[in-house]
Amino acid sequence: MTPELLLLSADRVGVLVFALSGGIAAVRNDMDLFGVIVLAFLPAVGGGTLRDLILDAPVFWLEDTVSLWLALLGGLLAFFFTRFLEDFKPLRWADAVGLALFAVTGAAKAWGMGHGFIIIAIMGVMTASAGGLIRDVVANRDPLLLKEDIYATAALAGAAVYAGLVYAGLDERIAFGLGMLAAFILRALAIVFKLSLPRARP
Amino acid sequence: MTPELLLLSADRVGVLVFALSGGIAAVRNDMDLFGVIVLAFLPAVGGGTLRDLILDAPVFWLEDTVSLWLALLGGLLAFFFTRFLEDFKPLRWADAVGLALFAVTGAAKAWGMGHGFIIIAIMGVMTASAGGLIRDVVANRDPLLLKEDIYATAALAGAAVYAGLVYAGLDERIAFGLGMLAAFILRALAIVFKLSLPRARP
Amino acid sequence: MTPELLLLSADRVGVLVFALSGGIAAVRNDMDLFGVIVLAFLPAVGGGTLRDLILDAPVFWLEDTVSLWLALLGGLLAFFFTRFLEDFKPLRWADAVGLALFAVTGAAKAWGMGHGFIIIAIMGVMTASAGGLIRDVVANRDPLLLKEDIYATAALAGAAVYAGLVYAGLDERIAFGLGMLAAFILRALAIVFKLSLPRARP
Repeated sequence: MTPELLLLSADRVGVLVFALSGGIAAVRNDMDLFGVIVLAFLPAVGGGTLRDLILDAPVFWLEDTVSLWLALLGGLLAFFFTRFLEDFKPLRWADAVGLALFAVTGAAKAWGMGHGFIIIAIMGVMTASAGGLIRDVVANRDPLLLKEDIYATAALAGAAVYAGLVYAGLDERIAFGLGMLAAFILRALAIVFKLSLPRARP
Repeated sequence: MTPELLLLSADRVGVLVFALSGGIAAVRNDMDLFGVIVLAFLPAVGGGTLRDLILDAPVFWLEDTVSLWLALLGGLLAFFFTRFLEDFKPLRWADAVGLALFAVTGAAKAWGMGHGFIIIAIMGVMTASAGGLIRDVVANRDPLLLKEDIYATAALAGAAVYAGLVYAGLDERIAFGLGMLAAFILRALAIVFKLSLPRARP
Repeated sequence: MTPELLLLSADRVGVLVFALSGGIAAVRNDMDLFGVIVLAFLPAVGGGTLRDLILDAPVFWLEDTVSLWLALLGGLLAFFFTRFLEDFKPLRWADAVGLALFAVTGAAKAWGMGHGFIIIAIMGVMTASAGGLIRDVVANRDPLLLKEDIYATAALAGAAVYAGLVYAGLDERIAFGLGMLAAFILRALAIVFKLSLPRARP
């Protein structure tokens, strides 16, 4: 597999798995078929949509409609097979791959448009996690992303590593790979050791 | 009435009735005058706003400010007359007309910009129903759109019929009318026979 | 201090205080460090972001990244010092200054792009209060902005005074100052006398 094909495959898997996460949340929330599909689309393409709107770039799925069909497929799979998918452990790891890829994709897009560190970091986090946040808000459930677990922080780590390395003059493709690796490793550690961020004591 | 005038009238009625739906939800949710007006605006212009942002078209109400004044009027009417409006059956039928028109308007805008089937379908559904979804999320109530009833599905049917017919080479104005008819009939059947989409059994 | 420096200072204070409001809401809602920072960003830059997207202007913080660092700072301060900040009365007055400034800033931007009265009014209200509304929706708490208190109405007053005066041919800088003053006075009266808007009796 060439690196390009590898990235493309990771992107397709990421979109599908993110869509499954939304669809499963919708089924759990007793939504109908339409609701399940809407909630599949939100995490699958929501973060990238918001990123593109803010960066004033064409919304990616207007051209890349494969992402939309995969989001639809993810919704349908969730609708029919939620019971099996929920307990299917490998999904968590595919989700971590999607998280890592989306974070660095968003960061690379911001960098390619000439933005500085904080914008790169925000776009990485937004691409990887804003769709999931909107999913939780629409499903009217507690946004766990903001409360538990190390998830968006892994996206931030990936974006920051990528930004630091391209600023340091490293080849952009190597920075891309190392950024993904950083995000994935942090997310994997969080899954295995149940890490979470500190909370304030109000 | 010429077809243009008919469509314009339907649009004005649709915006007003959608605004009423938001205003009534706000009154029910014990909001103050400002809240009622905000919730009137969301369904009246929210879907079209999101569509225009994503298609990178100028947001329609920056020019067509009549829609804004109608949304404001709808909010004020809801504020003062909720009790009467809620039980006023014809509103459901005016809402169905608005739904049908907005769905095909959104679809036609996407088609006019050269997009393919899935984008046309999404823009139809989004124009007709995203504002109502945002209304429910902001009002912190269960998004019935995602749970019960055939509503967005009627918008999808209208957009799909429109897209199929223009692809087949039919005159765009006839396709527009038949798309609206399809959406309206499906919505009407859902109202009369209390149809709803299936749910998954989690 | 020159007027420009005064306005810049007011803007910096406004962003910081709005960020504190989001961060404090997040700590109260038991969010983790990431959640606190996200909820600090929403009121600090959310309203202006939505305004710029709809007006098709470049999103202001892509260039003015100082706002982002101040939002981050506000989140961190809220995370560590919520207990002290909550009871710190002067914050309410700094918030009122931010509200007044953001309202007129949004109105002035719409006027500068050639829009008419209702768009100017909407952009003033949106800049000052949409971020706070999104904060409440994401934090899954009742949007008080839509239920109690005179807050967005003060923003509306400021935008309307500004619009009226520039339409009447007054110097734009004087209109700016008087618009801010109107918004601030109305908000101050609301704080001191606990004023609120009427509600409908459903």
